[in-house]
This record gives sequence, structure tokens and C-alpha cells, in this order.
Amino acid sequence: MDALLDQLGLQARKAARTLATASEAQRNQALIAAAARIGEHTEAILAANAEDMDAARQAGKPAAYLDRLKLTPERVAAIKDAVAAIGALPDPVGRVLAHIDRPNGLKIDRIAVPLGVIGMIFEARPNVAADASALCIKSGNAVILRAGSDSLASSRALVNAMREGLAAAGLPEDAVQLIDTTDRAAVQALLQCTAHVDLVIPRGGRGLVELVRDQARVPTLLHLDGNCHTYIHAAADIGKAVAIVRNAKLRRTGICGATESLVVDRSVAQSVLPQILDAMPECEFRGDALACGIDARVRPAIDADFDTEYLDAILSVKIVEGLESAIDWVCTHSSAHTDAIITEDEIAAHAFLTRIDSAIVMHNASTQFADGGEFGMGAEIGIATGKMHARGPVGLEQLTSFKYVVRGEGQTRA
Amino acid sequence: MDALLDQLGLQARKAARTLATASEAQRNQALIAAAARIGEHTEAILAANAEDMDAARQAGKPAAYLDRLKLTPERVAAIKDAVAAIGALPDPVGRVLAHIDRPNGLKIDRIAVPLGVIGMIFEARPNVAADASALCIKSGNAVILRAGSDSLASSRALVNAMREGLAAAGLPEDAVQLIDTTDRAAVQALLQCTAHVDLVIPRGGRGLVELVRDQARVPTLLHLDGNCHTYIHAAADIGKAVAIVRNAKLRRTGICGATESLVVDRSVAQSVLPQILDAMPECEFRGDALACGIDARVRPAIDADFDTEYLDAILSVKIVEGLESAIDWVCTHSSAHTDAIITEDEIAAHAFLTRIDSAIVMHNASTQFADGGEFGMGAEIGIATGKMHARGPVGLEQLTSFKYVVRGEGQTRA
Repeated sequence: MDALLDQLGLQARKAARTLATASEAQRNQALIAAAARIGEHTEAILAANAEDMDAARQAGKPAAYLDRLKLTPERVAAIKDAVAAIGALPDPVGRVLAHIDRPNGLKIDRIAVPLGVIGMIFEARPNVAADASALCIKSGNAVILRAGSDSLASSRALVNAMREGLAAAGLPEDAVQLIDTTDRAAVQALLQCTAHVDLVIPRGGRGLVELVRDQARVPTLLHLDGNCHTYIHAAADIGKAVAIVRNAKLRRTGICGATESLVVDRSVAQSVLPQILDAMPECEFRGDALACGIDARVRPAIDADFDTEYLDAILSVKIVEGLESAIDWVCTHSSAHTDAIITEDEIAAHAFLTRIDSAIVMHNASTQFADGGEFGMGAEIGIATGKMHARGPVGLEQLTSFKYVVRGEGQTRA
Repeated sequence: MDALLDQLGLQARKAARTLATASEAQRNQALIAAAARIGEHTEAILAANAEDMDAARQAGKPAAYLDRLKLTPERVAAIKDAVAAIGALPDPVGRVLAHIDRPNGLKIDRIAVPLGVIGMIFEARPNVAADASALCIKSGNAVILRAGSDSLASSRALVNAMREGLAAAGLPEDAVQLIDTTDRAAVQALLQCTAHVDLVIPRGGRGLVELVRDQARVPTLLHLDGNCHTYIHAAADIGKAVAIVRNAKLRRTGICGATESLVVDRSVAQSVLPQILDAMPECEFRGDALACGIDARVRPAIDADFDTEYLDAILSVKIVEGLESAIDWVCTHSSAHTDAIITEDEIAAHAFLTRIDSAIVMHNASTQFADGGEFGMGAEIGIATGKMHARGPVGLEQLTSFKYVVRGEGQTRA
């Protein structure tokens, strides 16, 4: 399997060299052509997906899983539109990030350049094959895709369309490659391939992400927990608080930016908590003794509830004695993804936003806004919960590195 | 040893929380006070260094090693001045890196924040204990220092001064901690301490850097090879070329930005190579057959010469057939640190600067400028040869991460 990855890696590296110096117009042309090919090949893509679906059904996969895997004509059209939309985003390559004029006359520019070769590991959702390829082409990177065994046929069909798009624009097809085997050893080989792979991004369940974290020798950008908090401060507007908490928990319960833990100031808990429970009848609440005492619909929580990412219609509730206690509580239990304060008090908001060390901190907004698209980044390849290189949504800018270009007229160092 | 690192890590994390929200004035005050303490404790620092020197001499360390370890009153004064100078640099914390106004009224800022807890592993040079501590304090980070066993007493004395400076400014002393043991298991424990350490930076020889690369579970910024090239293009100004090559190789042979490989266009080799040899009589040249044929002072190179970082007065010489061959050669043999082209032809320069994917690419300048100070960054904690997070000199900006601060008025996501 190491030999296969060596081969894919060498091909990717070669393609990456060409892509890194291709013009923006040429990279965009590849994406326009790829989008067209996805449209033209819709039937073949659906047929491949039907194969994957049959196998997954026979393997007894649950309904939610099958829904993630399933493609329809509408979903293929959405994938096509997403690829075209990525082509229309601003070019992340070649941005001048800094310019320095030195007293000795040297002129130094820090310029955004592609990372090189990116490995993308995903599970059931076949759209990731197209999205990730498009983001990598746009940012001048080559990508090696590893699909879950259940989505391999669908991914192959989408990858073919992406490669045809590259060829149509005169760019190397090997800028997008699929590891076309279900052998699990390929994941290991990709994660150890430091010679040819500059970055691996996993998209999937906790098992996959932990495997990547524990086994990777290559750099990674990964997303572990999303134990997001919404804190209702004493000076909160109660109407806003109720609407935001409902949205933050229930708009979609399965995304990483969903609020999992509600923190409420004791001074307002008596009034706000019953209103929140009234507004969210479909949600289960698990709270501390104080919360249970305020409203009988809150069931007793155990300690582990406060560190759990439910990804479901369940919310833990902690009553605190004020801003300092709330900040301590969130610092201790947050997974440093996204945490919000609801308050009309600007000083309290400033303290929370400054002292909570999470990738995203919010004031009077739903944590479900934690998303590259909602941030105006156009599209995201994932969300990073580490602090190095990228933090929060990983979009086109985060798929670049930089280099220093130094221009002189014969300067030597004293 | 894991227990010791857990303890140091918890203390560092707590200190880092305080430092991250300390004002710029308070962090600067700590550095001013620390510089003063270094001055006041000069005798104690020199006495500790004398201990280290005695032990290193008894252990039979070579003269160059002893010189790196040795402190003098002048060197202590230079360390003091460096700490004070870092205090005077611009604040890297709180910079607004991007501002996004969303159509739904959300206002999003990307703000520079400290990384958290940084582990610094170094060998003989005791000044690193003070430099790294100062850079971390300035950037709002806590640091855990691991000194080489030979420099432990000197490092302890300098760390004491840094901690006194922190205390004088009302900041937690544990923002600077020394792993006060020579047990090698401590390095392993530091490299695995993902719970409390956000980044490890090694400064030292290849053995240390490779150990960190192979064993770290925490993120790292490290510097492997510096096989830097200077390429003399057909349209080079010969006078500039001779002066630059001499400086790039010989100004200091032991630094990572020193040119190790000279690449010369065949069309100018006959005229420029003998002049370079004339100008660099103290340097040994090892070249390919063409180079040997042009000047008998060039000795035959073996293949390995072209991938060797000599860190000595030795230069490999490759004759190429033109720009394309030169770019191919440098792409193949460069360690992606720093590579330069000497030419008066702007189009050739543009091709080289664009297509060579090294951290630093230069036109008509000495590769010895590859240095944070020379880039106007004030001071560097190291140089990174990877592409993630930081590339090239690692200064104050590179010791920060960022967070997104989202301000709303009750927005919920549709």
C-alpha cells in the first residue's frame, strides 16, 4: 500500500507543481468545465450511487447514514452548482500578505502560495469528493481523496468529472486522484506519507478523526469536539435569548456549531428558563439541581452531560452565579469551538469575548452561524479545532501557505 | 516524568490565561524589569555559567561548543539588551487580521490571540532561555523551557531573572518555567503533552530536530535542512555575482541561510567561475565534470555533495544549460529553505521566484539575509521549513493564533 501511495503522491506532486503556477483563469476554467461534466454525467453518477446505496442497504446501514450517502438529480445539481460557485470565489493564490521595505534597499513580499498536496479522507457523503477537489483546484493544490468504502463508486464517478474538467482546461488530471481501493491500510499509508503529502484533512465521525489524530505523521487540520455553549447573562434581552437558544440548539442538531450546553445566570433563570422550555417542547433538558428546582421539565444531569456533544435534541443546563462563574465554567467545559454570550451589557460581552479562548466567540447570535459559508468564506473544507495554521472554518485562504520573495540589487550582509 | 510535565503544564496553562488578557503595557513592563534583573544578576549568571563551562570542559566538549556555551559580561549585557528590545517591538496580540460585514448584520473580526503554552527545547546556547522567554511573554504565551544538560545552570540563572521580571509587573512567574532536570525522559514527556502544550519549537543540531520530528504528538515548528542555492543566470552582473556568492557562502558558514550549492549557467561559467575562485581562496569547491574542466581548483564532487548542508567553507558547483535546467535542479535538490537567482533579466528572475517553492526566494541578494532580524521582524525564535502556520523566520506574529469574534443583535440562522 505504501507503493500505491508513493505512486499517487509522486503524480500529485508533479501535478501540484503545474497547478501552483497555472493562471487563475485556467484554474477557474477547470472548475467551470468540471461543473459542466458533472451535469452531463448525472445519470452515470446516479447509477454509481445506486450501487453504493444497494451495498449499504444490504450492510444494514441506518436510515440517517443512507440519507447522507444518497444522491438525487437535485443533489447532483447542487454539487455541480457548488463546484461552479467555488470557481467564482476570489483567488487565494498570489495575495500579497505583507510588504517590507528594508533600510538596505531589500524589498520583501510575503506572498500566498498553495500548500502542495492535500489528502482528504471522508466517509459517506459523496459531495465531499467534488467540494474538496474544487477547493483544492481553486487554491492551486493537488488532492488525493480517500472515500469511505460505502461511497467509493459515487466518488469515482464525481472524480472522473473533476479530472475531465482539469483536462479540458489543459491542466494535469492527476491534480485530483482517488485512492481506488477499500483496503484500510491505504489510510495508514496516506497518513504516513510525509514525502509527498503536505496536509491531511479528515471529514467524518469521531472514530475517523481520532484515528487521524493518533496515526498521522503528516500535518493535519481536524475537528474533534463541538461542545458549544450559549450563556444567558443577567442583562440579556429575554426575547433574543429564547429565540437564539432555540435556533442554536434545534435548527440542525447534528452540526458541530449546535449549542450543547446552556449556561444561565441565576438572577434571570427563574424567568427565562421556563420560557425556553415552552419554546422548545421537542428538546430534552438535563440540568443541575438549581435548574431542576426552577422547572420540573428539566431532568437531573450527571457530570458527563456537561462535557457531551449530543448532536441531538438534548441540552444540558447549568445555573451560575454571574459572569465570572460563567467564564470559569465555559473555560473548563468548552471544547474551544464556538461559545456565545447573550447580553445587552457591552462590558460583560467584552469580558466574555476576550477571555473565552475558543475558535469562535459570539455576542447575541446563534452558535449555528459557525460555518465558513456564513462567515462569507464561500465554502469550507472543514472546521479546525486546533490553533496552528487555521482555526475555525477552513476555506480557500487556509489552504495556502506563503513564501517570502526578496528583491535586491546586489546586497550582501554585513 | 509525565507527572512533572503535567504539573508544569497545568501551571503554564493557568499563567497563559492571565498573560493572554494582560495589557501590552504590563507585558512590556515585565520585559523591562526582566532586563534590569539580568543586569543586576550578572555575577550570579556568570558564576552559574562557570559551573556549566567546567562540567563541559571536563566532558571534553570541543572548542566551538564551549564558545556557544560561554557567557561573558559583554554577552550577558547583549542578552539583557535583546530582552529589552523585544519589549519595544509592536504588540502582536489583538491585531485585527480581517473584518467581515455580513448581509444579515453580523460583524465578524479575526483577531490575533496568543497560542497558549509553548515548549522550547534548546542545547548549548544559554541566551535562548532569555530570548525565547521574552518572545513568549511579549506574545502573551507561557513557555516551558528544556535546556541542554550542559547549559542547565546558566539557563536557571537567566530564567530566575525572567521570573522576577514577571513578578515585578504583577504577572504570574509560571509564564516562564524551566524543566529543571537533566533526565532525557523529560523531552519525551514534553513532546507527548498534548493536554497542556500547544506548540514545541526545537533549537539545536540535527539530532535534536529529528528526535522532535519523530516523537512529537504536539504541534511543532522546526527547521531541518538549509541546503540553499545561489544560481548565476546567463544575464547576471558578474561583479554582483562574485560579491554575493562570496558573502552567501563565507560571511558565516555555520548558519542555515548560508549558500551550500552554486549553480552556474554554462554560457557564463567560463568567465565567472575563475573570478569566484579567485575571490574565495579560503573555500573548497566541489563541482561536476564541467566545473572541474573550467578551473582545476574545483575538485570532483560526488552525488551526495549536491544534497549536503556543509555548514563549512565548502561549496558544491553545478553547471546547467539555462534557466529551465536551473529551476529543475534547484527544485530537485533544494531543501526549500532559501534559494537565490543572480540576473539582470527580470523575466528570468520572475520565473525563478515564482517556480521555486522555497520558504524564501531571492533576486540579486545574499542568501545570508534569510533571518528574522534582517526581515524587520525584530527577533526570531527559529526558522520553520514546513509549510503549515509559519514558514521561514518565526517571529512574534508567528507565535500567535487567531479567533473569530462575531457580534450580532439577536440573529438566528435560517
